[in-house]
Amino acid sequence: MARYCIGIDLGGTFIKFGLLDEQYHPSEVFQLPTPLDGGTDALVEQMVTGARKAMDEAGGEVVGVGIGSPGPLSLERGIVIDSPNIPCLKNVPLRDLVAEPLGLPATLENDANAAACGEYLCGAGQRCGDMVLLTLGTGLGGGVIINGKVHHGAHEIGAELGHMMIVPGGRLCGCGQRGCIEQYCSATFMSRWAAKSLQSNGRQSSLKELLAANGEITSKDVNEARAAGDGFASEVWDEMARYLATGCVNFARILDPERIVLAGGMAAAGEDLLGPVLEHYQRLHWSLTEAKTKITLATLGNDAGVIGSAGVAWQQFAS
Amino acid sequence: MARYCIGIDLGGTFIKFGLLDEQYHPSEVFQLPTPLDGGTDALVEQMVTGARKAMDEAGGEVVGVGIGSPGPLSLERGIVIDSPNIPCLKNVPLRDLVAEPLGLPATLENDANAAACGEYLCGAGQRCGDMVLLTLGTGLGGGVIINGKVHHGAHEIGAELGHMMIVPGGRLCGCGQRGCIEQYCSATFMSRWAAKSLQSNGRQSSLKELLAANGEITSKDVNEARAAGDGFASEVWDEMARYLATGCVNFARILDPERIVLAGGMAAAGEDLLGPVLEHYQRLHWSLTEAKTKITLATLGNDAGVIGSAGVAWQQFAS
Repeated sequence: MARYCIGIDLGGTFIKFGLLDEQYHPSEVFQLPTPLDGGTDALVEQMVTGARKAMDEAGGEVVGVGIGSPGPLSLERGIVIDSPNIPCLKNVPLRDLVAEPLGLPATLENDANAAACGEYLCGAGQRCGDMVLLTLGTGLGGGVIINGKVHHGAHEIGAELGHMMIVPGGRLCGCGQRGCIEQYCSATFMSRWAAKSLQSNGRQSSLKELLAANGEITSKDVNEARAAGDGFASEVWDEMARYLATGCVNFARILDPERIVLAGGMAAAGEDLLGPVLEHYQRLHWSLTEAKTKITLATLGNDAGVIGSAGVAWQQFAS
Repeated sequence: MARYCIGIDLGGTFIKFGLLDEQYHPSEVFQLPTPLDGGTDALVEQMVTGARKAMDEAGGEVVGVGIGSPGPLSLERGIVIDSPNIPCLKNVPLRDLVAEPLGLPATLENDANAAACGEYLCGAGQRCGDMVLLTLGTGLGGGVIINGKVHHGAHEIGAELGHMMIVPGGRLCGCGQRGCIEQYCSATFMSRWAAKSLQSNGRQSSLKELLAANGEITSKDVNEARAAGDGFASEVWDEMARYLATGCVNFARILDPERIVLAGGMAAAGEDLLGPVLEHYQRLHWSLTEAKTKITLATLGNDAGVIGSAGVAWQQFAS
């Protein structure tokens, strides 16, 4: 009989559900709305409802449940300490609250690490050794896979890759540090600093009209303006690619992963992102060896988290 | 009967030998000169002679031999690819050449990783989880311990910690990159750039006389001048501490080790080094949590490599 783990990816708007069999083949993913008004009870009930639906579809043995959640979390104790977009989750033992009604063992993992596990098991990291995932979205999240497992560090705060400082005394980050790579390379922060710069300098740019009309500009706006020949947008995009490549060189020097996988909203730019990053990477990295760590685009899109959450459960409960 | 592994630390001037028992208690370390004129045969003979002496002293069962060597190496094949200070070592299968006459299994590890393993098993990293070692000497070497083992990476070139770039477009490094932390924080490069700066600027400094008299200045000179109130030396030392602290924050963000251990020639400055590094570290790191990764000084001095080489052998041959 086929055996499955259930993956649950908890987001601020939707909760995603999916199954992963023992050979790491994922099923179709479905989603239910995240109930934000009914407190922890309603949230847990929705998670359990979706998990039961997934179990019914499984038609086989279900071994365990993997939950991916925004953090900070206490992984070992299965607790969500805080979750900015889901206000009821403050010091909630979410892992056990979901596990008990289902009668299944459960794991809790942070969403960026779960996505890394998903790409490693079923996506761009398949059949690869150590891997680094960079999620370029609102912030710059990440996950590190070492010897096939998510690396958590001694205090469960490892792989905060967006907070590697690459510009001494640079842009102030929300974390309190200066010059964090997140401020230069995440979709949101790259665009926000570009908007700030446009407001204070005298540069001509098609982005100025967009900014005036919409009150903000997005990384997609920047890339489209760049593709249309806008000089300011080209500089912003190129600076982002240069700092991202700098980060990739540093991960290669420190961790020497087989692959660095680019994911998140900005990875939708595809070759428009990968091309310039690879160009800077080749130029910036040392001359002692060729660039052995490969940089690639993620392949699972928004399903990496739910698939990877189930993958984390498999790694825990397989035996 | 007590069981031992032999450690051999191969240097450009001396070869060190020592024993490590199963409880990771090291014996007294002794050394023999490194024969540089007799080719590989003479070098291997000296290593075997020292190892036999160590075996005779052991008075117990010897389980294996661990060799630490400067690199680059091919770890899996046990080959020294190149060794700038020992010219005969070019593509030499050193591990097996030493193992055969001794009739013992052997391991080959690069010297910085071996030192990390030594501090982890017997020094400043004892009873600790993941650990990072930084060796501040001619260059800035390093080792990363994850789950108790040396981290090598997918292509055996991980933990090249001195080549993390921390200043965009900064000082040109011998590796071809710019802004590597090694250029700002190793004993030799810090002093060399300080000397260059003194020659081209109009600053007053007691280091100017030393430079004129000796043709160079050392990190010890810089620290002594700083302690005596020299303004230029204070700035140089403080900049080094600031960049080293920046690197430590980055290792905390990426790896979240329990401890970062400072070793190598410059660590002899003791609190003169640790104090300013800790001060900058507290100031630079994020405000989301306290600084959980601790920074400490190494405790094994120059014996870390030979002890750690034996430790690597134990990890391989214990079962």
